[in-house]
Amino acid sequence: MARLVLKFGGTSVADLERLERVARRIKAEWGQGHELAVIVSAMAGQTNYLVNLVRSASALADLREYDVVVSSGEQVTSGLLAIILQRLGVPARSWMGWQLPVRTTVQHGSARVEAIETAELRRRFKEERQVAVLAGFQGLADDGRTTTLGRGGSDTSAVALAAAIEADRCDIYTDVDGIYTSDPRIVAKARKLERITYEEMLEMASLGAKVLQTRSVELAMKHRLCVQVRSSFEDRPGTLVVDEEEIVEQAVVSGIAHSLDEAKVTLTRIPDRPGIAAAIFGPLADAAINIDMIVQNISLDGEITDMTFTVSRGELDRALMVLEKNRDTLRYESLERDDKVAKVSVVGVGMCSHAGVAQKMFTTLAEKGINIQVITTSEIKISVLVAEDYLELALRALHSAYGLDAD
Amino acid sequence: MARLVLKFGGTSVADLERLERVARRIKAEWGQGHELAVIVSAMAGQTNYLVNLVRSASALADLREYDVVVSSGEQVTSGLLAIILQRLGVPARSWMGWQLPVRTTVQHGSARVEAIETAELRRRFKEERQVAVLAGFQGLADDGRTTTLGRGGSDTSAVALAAAIEADRCDIYTDVDGIYTSDPRIVAKARKLERITYEEMLEMASLGAKVLQTRSVELAMKHRLCVQVRSSFEDRPGTLVVDEEEIVEQAVVSGIAHSLDEAKVTLTRIPDRPGIAAAIFGPLADAAINIDMIVQNISLDGEITDMTFTVSRGELDRALMVLEKNRDTLRYESLERDDKVAKVSVVGVGMCSHAGVAQKMFTTLAEKGINIQVITTSEIKISVLVAEDYLELALRALHSAYGLDAD
Repeated sequence: MARLVLKFGGTSVADLERLERVARRIKAEWGQGHELAVIVSAMAGQTNYLVNLVRSASALADLREYDVVVSSGEQVTSGLLAIILQRLGVPARSWMGWQLPVRTTVQHGSARVEAIETAELRRRFKEERQVAVLAGFQGLADDGRTTTLGRGGSDTSAVALAAAIEADRCDIYTDVDGIYTSDPRIVAKARKLERITYEEMLEMASLGAKVLQTRSVELAMKHRLCVQVRSSFEDRPGTLVVDEEEIVEQAVVSGIAHSLDEAKVTLTRIPDRPGIAAAIFGPLADAAINIDMIVQNISLDGEITDMTFTVSRGELDRALMVLEKNRDTLRYESLERDDKVAKVSVVGVGMCSHAGVAQKMFTTLAEKGINIQVITTSEIKISVLVAEDYLELALRALHSAYGLDAD
Repeated sequence: MARLVLKFGGTSVADLERLERVARRIKAEWGQGHELAVIVSAMAGQTNYLVNLVRSASALADLREYDVVVSSGEQVTSGLLAIILQRLGVPARSWMGWQLPVRTTVQHGSARVEAIETAELRRRFKEERQVAVLAGFQGLADDGRTTTLGRGGSDTSAVALAAAIEADRCDIYTDVDGIYTSDPRIVAKARKLERITYEEMLEMASLGAKVLQTRSVELAMKHRLCVQVRSSFEDRPGTLVVDEEEIVEQAVVSGIAHSLDEAKVTLTRIPDRPGIAAAIFGPLADAAINIDMIVQNISLDGEITDMTFTVSRGELDRALMVLEKNRDTLRYESLERDDKVAKVSVVGVGMCSHAGVAQKMFTTLAEKGINIQVITTSEIKISVLVAEDYLELALRALHSAYGLDAD
């Protein structure tokens, strides 16, 4: 008997037929005597539909109201799944974020889970063998209002709940059957990984591998919680996200990630003075816009420089709006945008003990005539920004160069 | 300066364009210094969509989970309207039933409002001139879960809130411009009423005039609250629902209502013994199925009789299921169903002081060769059940017979 959290993403619950399949899978686990908490996302497409409604209603919508509208998607799925489980003879009830509650920060639109009250869930596991079906992606802030955790937040709901109820494992059911060395839709020779470390998964997630939300991996790592990414359509093991010591043979590079959700902003000819970065990024942070890569040009005359950074494409317009509002204080000459860029990243925990990993990346891209626009590095990854048109070429070349190709 | 409750139904908030129009109308009222609470329904079609999802998930869905799914429609509309109002410069925030809270009974799927906490709303009216946008149709029960008030429940939310905040008037904005002497889509000579009494409106509502939910009229009558039914698409006065003394010239018959939401059930050859009605209707009441008209045949031999009653069409299958389950105790010979019936009702507070109103109804229908299947009467209305095919003919004939036709 184990205590498990099962999380089903949007494509796994896209319609009633799929929800039925999900319910049967839950019933099978339940039939083995496991204690189960299930986290569901909104039905595929629903969150986008709701987000678009909000955006059409106002370009700068109150994020508290955004949360009201957008959190309704998970509400619907959790109620429906509880109904289907009951029909199959499995005691189940839905829980909204405000009910448990799932306590979060008050940062609407991208709140963080702070605590989850689980006494009632544990009691129902024991006494009623009840399956808890929690609406993912949502919580309750101290302002008494529903919050959402940011896109992909249901993963975080799942891991946070798994930590709170001290689950033995958290299974993330999704439309892929595991973590690959690269996106198999682009790199035909990509291989599925049996295991991957938290650290690598974290980089992969934050670098655009859309399988798990970054925050959820952080949380899993913090609690040393075993997470399995597996297919909701096939019944075979997925990829386990685990501690480094649980991996016997560690490759230098585990995978090549990429992201098309990048947009580049350049402020030209800004004064090169202390505090200028704070002046630029402060207002963006206030508007809850996340900055990814940043490059400040070498200032030739010591007075004027350029600043380049990337944001997610969905936040580009908002970022530009904020910068235009602050034009007088920032004193840039022009504000340039480019959303035809892609980020390509090489990831591996073995990297920190091996030299030449970066050099191989630069050489490989140079040989294919691919220009690198921005570079950032960390202990276990190197990321470069390239023109979107070169994405596929770059991925395949790097996948081969690091010896990741399947036989 | 007045305190008003404005309620907008599903067709008035069917899409963003209409929500924008609603927001502008609210802004105009707000600009005149009024304190405003707004109640919104789900966008047109959304509740039906959600109800169908639930029904497809399970024929006998847990009503607590039904409420989780179905209440999401109003949630979306209230958030969107708050966003649009803010964009137009009107301070506004959405409120879910669980937030105020709107306290209801625990009867999921058809809960009744018990109390609404309004201190915070009143404070915000005064201090922030904030418009409250309440998701209609929903509340919070003592079980800590969201309830819904039954179809059309947003009207009840509106009137209950108006009573709670001691509003000067409750305006129900809808897709018709008032209450008519009969359904103008069927009776071309139907006239709009300037005023109607609570009692008449109550009968009209419970008899199928879908403009106001019955419960909302009861509540308005209880609190002597002036309710106006008016068009959200045209800017002219609608029909005021008021006390009888506020109506100067009261006609004998005010209107002819009808309902197609009727289904007839007959239990043949049941034992005619004391308690048989309780034995039949007890289990139906337990299943929260409302019975409308009831006829028990005269028992010829004093031992065996037939029982006929009507339920709403949506509950017919469930009613039959309940009766079949109790077949052994009820000992009926056969269970017959007919959902091709319509109810036609003549309504008027003047009726109780005038003789011959019923006689005129029976004569008029007889002259047209329309067979009456069931009759029920009250102080101010007479209802008959006829075959659905005769509905239009019956309505027009009665409308003329009682002198209601427009010139």
